[in-house]
Amino acid sequence: MIDLLQDQLAHIDADQTWLVGVSGGRDSVCLLDLLVRAGFSNLVVVHVNHQLRGEESAGDAKFVEQLARHHGVDFYSESVDVQQLASIQQKGLELAARETRHEVFAQAMAKYDAAGVLLGHHADDQAETVLYNLLRGSNGLKGMRFENAVKVSGISLMFLRPMLTIRRSDIDAYVNEHGLAYREDASNAEGFTARNRLRKEVMPLLTDIMKREVVPQINTAAESSMEQADFFTNEVSLESFLDPQGRVFLPALSEAHIALQQSILFQYLKVQGVPELSRSVVMSGLEICDSSAPAKVNLPGGNWLRRKEQRLFVQRA
Amino acid sequence: MIDLLQDQLAHIDADQTWLVGVSGGRDSVCLLDLLVRAGFSNLVVVHVNHQLRGEESAGDAKFVEQLARHHGVDFYSESVDVQQLASIQQKGLELAARETRHEVFAQAMAKYDAAGVLLGHHADDQAETVLYNLLRGSNGLKGMRFENAVKVSGISLMFLRPMLTIRRSDIDAYVNEHGLAYREDASNAEGFTARNRLRKEVMPLLTDIMKREVVPQINTAAESSMEQADFFTNEVSLESFLDPQGRVFLPALSEAHIALQQSILFQYLKVQGVPELSRSVVMSGLEICDSSAPAKVNLPGGNWLRRKEQRLFVQRA
Repeated sequence: MIDLLQDQLAHIDADQTWLVGVSGGRDSVCLLDLLVRAGFSNLVVVHVNHQLRGEESAGDAKFVEQLARHHGVDFYSESVDVQQLASIQQKGLELAARETRHEVFAQAMAKYDAAGVLLGHHADDQAETVLYNLLRGSNGLKGMRFENAVKVSGISLMFLRPMLTIRRSDIDAYVNEHGLAYREDASNAEGFTARNRLRKEVMPLLTDIMKREVVPQINTAAESSMEQADFFTNEVSLESFLDPQGRVFLPALSEAHIALQQSILFQYLKVQGVPELSRSVVMSGLEICDSSAPAKVNLPGGNWLRRKEQRLFVQRA
Repeated sequence: MIDLLQDQLAHIDADQTWLVGVSGGRDSVCLLDLLVRAGFSNLVVVHVNHQLRGEESAGDAKFVEQLARHHGVDFYSESVDVQQLASIQQKGLELAARETRHEVFAQAMAKYDAAGVLLGHHADDQAETVLYNLLRGSNGLKGMRFENAVKVSGISLMFLRPMLTIRRSDIDAYVNEHGLAYREDASNAEGFTARNRLRKEVMPLLTDIMKREVVPQINTAAESSMEQADFFTNEVSLESFLDPQGRVFLPALSEAHIALQQSILFQYLKVQGVPELSRSVVMSGLEICDSSAPAKVNLPGGNWLRRKEQRLFVQRA
């Protein structure tokens, strides 16, 4: 498996300082081991204790601290009562936990002046994420990226996922082969009910039904979908569809492919600060392009999209 | 529900002759009833007996014939031992059954000079199809279209699916409300093991896990994905990336977005008659664009893709 990883690790400068997110579970323990063997010399193990499993959670933190010492690398940890935080902030547990981890990473980033954060997500995680996002209403298929950046408290966090194309079974094999110790349930600390059930009930059922591995199929489809979506997000120029007053010029829009029309109107509404943009908002906006349709439609935030003199524009309430 | 359908039916000329695929199951019985009430005056009920459920299959055919008579419309039917056909042609049962239906529709089309075929697929069928295609390795998400054309034995068959946005629960309600008789298992005649298990095991499990309806989410994501894929299939011009000798001009290709690169190379390889094109074939083709990479790569069918003088071209074996 380490061969499979070499391509990915070759893109990462092993001499820079990197944070590694380590829950103590199999995947992150494996990642840390691989990084150390690959010659990463300035690692900082970062562990967040979500306090979701009481004594067990404290045990995970202790275990990860010892693991860091064993590898001779720095250890940075925070303990946060995520359950309480979620209830105070009236957020979902999953969101509160993710934001907490991001905060802790941002603190460690500042302290160590690190280049970024390495995470142990693998191909099976990716397929579960794609499925989860699909069921929650993603526009097309959406998974994790090998690399993404998040701004937290003014600090730009770069996350890298070098194991994203590696199967869980390969990680298991590696962990067994090298006799690595890990904490059995630690990686589920961030796995909440729906995600856990997708992993434990749905994925095995799908594999059984299709009589083949489904993870590679899901991930390949997602890659393709994400690349195509990226084109419409980043490569379609809004400007060429605007008139000198900055309104959408309908004769140009109407001639474009439906996927381009959506991209244009989405970008325009976003620039105009219209909140809660979704596919259905964009689609109902496109319906008024037709001169036989009503000349305006409601937008989220109490504004309207209006059609007048062959232009579309946002009219404030 | 009939309100929801009116939009769709308004696009279909009720005075033309239409074939209606009727298995005798709930969905197609509902469609036939709706069409008759909507004033479609020249319908031909088409039924294919796949002989997969013995006496039951014969009973379905009899039932559909009586239903057609009840509505005062023409009836066209064929009985084909699909199991035997599949084994003779060494094809999967599902494929053999579909090809058989297409053949029968083509015969009926010729006999009645019909405008097309109306089918009873609904939103839940669509979500199952999308999931099934995803698990089999579709490029992005792929479902059925409201309208598609298939060429069979020289005859162009146009299929329309006016119920594609209607939920199964709405169909159930309509069927109950109007006391329509139907054959319990008839619509499963074409539902083979994997598809049936997705319907009966996976979809309810997903709805339970997510604690919300998942069919609308899946279908919305698929619509978006299909529109974007359509752009790359139909709107990206291969010609502008070719040199006067018809080879792919690398400096132009290299500057394009990855999704455009894939579209271009896919189209080029298709035009060159390379068989078994898949995402992985295209991706490995794109890898040789880099001048530091090997200058050729194997293609299916024993050909090579070569890079030479800043061009890519197919070299025959």
